[in-house]
Amino acid sequence: MTFQLDPRLAADTLPVADLALCTVRLMNDARYPWLILVPLREDAVEIHALAAGDRLSLTEETARVAGALAAHAPGHKINIGALGNIVRQLHIHVVARREGDAAWPGPVWGHGAAVPYDPAEAVRIIAALREKLA
Amino acid sequence: MTFQLDPRLAADTLPVADLALCTVRLMNDARYPWLILVPLREDAVEIHALAAGDRLSLTEETARVAGALAAHAPGHKINIGALGNIVRQLHIHVVARREGDAAWPGPVWGHGAAVPYDPAEAVRIIAALREKLA
Repeated sequence: MTFQLDPRLAADTLPVADLALCTVRLMNDARYPWLILVPLREDAVEIHALAAGDRLSLTEETARVAGALAAHAPGHKINIGALGNIVRQLHIHVVARREGDAAWPGPVWGHGAAVPYDPAEAVRIIAALREKLA
Repeated sequence: MTFQLDPRLAADTLPVADLALCTVRLMNDARYPWLILVPLREDAVEIHALAAGDRLSLTEETARVAGALAAHAPGHKINIGALGNIVRQLHIHVVARREGDAAWPGPVWGHGAAVPYDPAEAVRIIAALREKLA
């Protein structure tokens, strides 16, 4: 397997954890608690084209990440999305939303410019998310 | 079970098929081939809070709907989303996207106003989708 993370995804995110199928990364955007899962499968683009076993793993890992993010951001609504209109490499967004956030109630994708984390804040959040994922 | 389809979802969509867990409906918006799945579970809001068996069924039914929509709209990129910021009742969007469509490459949610189908066209598309789903 010669999986390589798309360079645009790599540039926009910070590493959080590796699960059995997916690598989990924090979107470097302080406007929303926002994780992505990227299955470590070369050339994966569409969820319906995955092998059934991979799709099952992806579903359970997405639910695990969503549960961790919901525990990290209580009272938020979780948004899950797989778009891939710009970056084709299959990646699943898991975003914690709340009334009044920058894009509420619209979707986060394509809405304004990312606000990068202060590095100390990013380190703190990644540690907290790792604990919730463990 | 006293499941009742949210009246806003009912008003925006047309019935296509009932699967084991979900009812499948066509968004009445001729700008994009766009289906939604609604699990027939009272008070379901978050995918990660579903029972594991329901989540597995939802995943497989979503993949089935996505495969049918991809066969109906060859060459399109499938977008899948579960947002629920406005309508809380759990519903999964499956949208066939192509370069140059009304919202490309952004998300369809919250983008402009729906363009209702001509009734004959809606009937034709629903019949074609039912065949692909069968």
